[in-house]
Amino acid sequence: MKARMENGRTEDIKAVWFENGKVRMIDQRELPLKLVIVDFEDYRDVAMAIKNMTTRGAPCIGASAAYAMCLAGLKKEDLDEAARYIKAARPTAYDLFYATDWMYDRLKAGDDPVRAADAYSDLTVDKCRKIGEYGGALIRDGMKLMTHCNAGALATVDVGTALAPMRNAHDAGKKFFVYASETRPRLQGMQLTAWELNQEGIDHAIIPDGSAAYYMSQGVDMIIVGADRIAANGDFANKIGTFDKAIVAKHFGIPFYVAAPVSTFDFSTKTGKDIVIEQRSEEEMTMVKDIRIAPVGSKALNPAFDVTPAEFVTGFITEKGIFKPTEISEMKE
Amino acid sequence: MKARMENGRTEDIKAVWFENGKVRMIDQRELPLKLVIVDFEDYRDVAMAIKNMTTRGAPCIGASAAYAMCLAGLKKEDLDEAARYIKAARPTAYDLFYATDWMYDRLKAGDDPVRAADAYSDLTVDKCRKIGEYGGALIRDGMKLMTHCNAGALATVDVGTALAPMRNAHDAGKKFFVYASETRPRLQGMQLTAWELNQEGIDHAIIPDGSAAYYMSQGVDMIIVGADRIAANGDFANKIGTFDKAIVAKHFGIPFYVAAPVSTFDFSTKTGKDIVIEQRSEEEMTMVKDIRIAPVGSKALNPAFDVTPAEFVTGFITEKGIFKPTEISEMKE
Repeated sequence: MKARMENGRTEDIKAVWFENGKVRMIDQRELPLKLVIVDFEDYRDVAMAIKNMTTRGAPCIGASAAYAMCLAGLKKEDLDEAARYIKAARPTAYDLFYATDWMYDRLKAGDDPVRAADAYSDLTVDKCRKIGEYGGALIRDGMKLMTHCNAGALATVDVGTALAPMRNAHDAGKKFFVYASETRPRLQGMQLTAWELNQEGIDHAIIPDGSAAYYMSQGVDMIIVGADRIAANGDFANKIGTFDKAIVAKHFGIPFYVAAPVSTFDFSTKTGKDIVIEQRSEEEMTMVKDIRIAPVGSKALNPAFDVTPAEFVTGFITEKGIFKPTEISEMKE
Repeated sequence: MKARMENGRTEDIKAVWFENGKVRMIDQRELPLKLVIVDFEDYRDVAMAIKNMTTRGAPCIGASAAYAMCLAGLKKEDLDEAARYIKAARPTAYDLFYATDWMYDRLKAGDDPVRAADAYSDLTVDKCRKIGEYGGALIRDGMKLMTHCNAGALATVDVGTALAPMRNAHDAGKKFFVYASETRPRLQGMQLTAWELNQEGIDHAIIPDGSAAYYMSQGVDMIIVGADRIAANGDFANKIGTFDKAIVAKHFGIPFYVAAPVSTFDFSTKTGKDIVIEQRSEEEMTMVKDIRIAPVGSKALNPAFDVTPAEFVTGFITEKGIFKPTEISEMKE
């Protein structure tokens, strides 16, 4: 992704990578005000970085897990214990489990840890580029798009899932506008998606989460979101607020697309009812920096994801093409 | 409303009142962390307090406007100029215009300014109590309710509109639970509604605006919101995010009530299309205190209200009873 560095130059940068024996990643909690790169040499610290959302987004969590396993492999640590530890970082994103198992198998087979993890990461980015090609073809000049949370390069090592079609269309010279829903409580829409769109020069505005119906009623041409886990029937988990937007989009007859690599499909999960939803701390809701903004005595609920039923999905934009929910079984690897 | 004061005692307090020649009000921008009372002796300052949301909520804006006119009357100021000035404070809430005109007529007729404004304020609270009686009858033991923004005592001098049925049911000993949607960007749900529910001892939790579908899918029995202006056909303006919740509630078949006094019905506005929606500053979205939280270069949109079509309303809970959208003409004064 493009990123304006402290020296004022714009450089190509990834969300996570391996360099000189260390896993390096953008600390996504510091964006958009500071671009901070953090280094890790122990897989447990990478697991913590996944847990505390230094890195986030299902595919990027996958790549980070692969690099965590890479560190375990380089240091000849117990791979079973490492895999268990890393998988415990967060419960919902399927890529975490997929990537950890993928690396476990490669390391057990004696593959080079760095080459294997780099291959996983590169594969993720390649898939995103293909998602961009398939999805980019849907975007026409003058369109108004809406997205939620961040399913951009920051969420996927590079390029993005939901933002990949936008990058592709922008590179092709198409002019369009993106409503970026701010995504409380952690504001990934405001702080990460808007940051990425800004770096790319894509026309956009940050909107409150509750304004989806207001803007859709005035004309939105397409919604594109990412996914953290997609069940075999097409029900999918994504950032809290996605389900609301899907219901509103259906009411207005607006196409609603989910952009995700095939690795986000969990064919062992039959329906959305079987997806575990992470409940995060109430402090994410009630605190800004160190200041409590909620009344003392009031509790807050903070479900990180919701599950949108397949019936709301116009199509899944994957690296293998665009599939309707009823066509999911055709993509099975 | 009940309020725990700095001395630790719980006292009955109003959102705005007149005392010793001054208009006094709770500075609602300081809640929930501090209970600050501010005084005004000039109607222009009260108008500014309406504009900058020291006081807010359609009925409370009405009462504040009445007290602003009261100050103009006491000081023998030009009443036409005062009415024009006060009405310019905010564009959407119908009560602002209704109350200003009501006071203008009383002052022109030679009524005592303080008695007239107090009468307007008391009338507002009386209406809220009746709304509480009609709406309270809808609440049964064990129910889960949802509300948005703050249509409580703070928004209506005392008692509230959307919160009036909850206060009534709570006083009757009913046990129920309230989801208070936090209401970005100004967080009136988190900072005002939760504060009021907390002071009353009503069981509740603050939720992100985007989690309405998540919680409604798990079982919510009733939504009750307030309104800033209701058109003759039942379309109504309320805090941004209301329309989203109405669409989601309809999807799940959950009753959706709007609690408002008859004075919020603007029979001269035929449909919601004619309601002016205030666009507030982008700093409300992009700044927390003095810190910018959005990327430099990204703009934000901040519509203060949305308009929900009448078809989504189960009933309007007013001081004259509960009316379906098709029955609105029957309540006309």
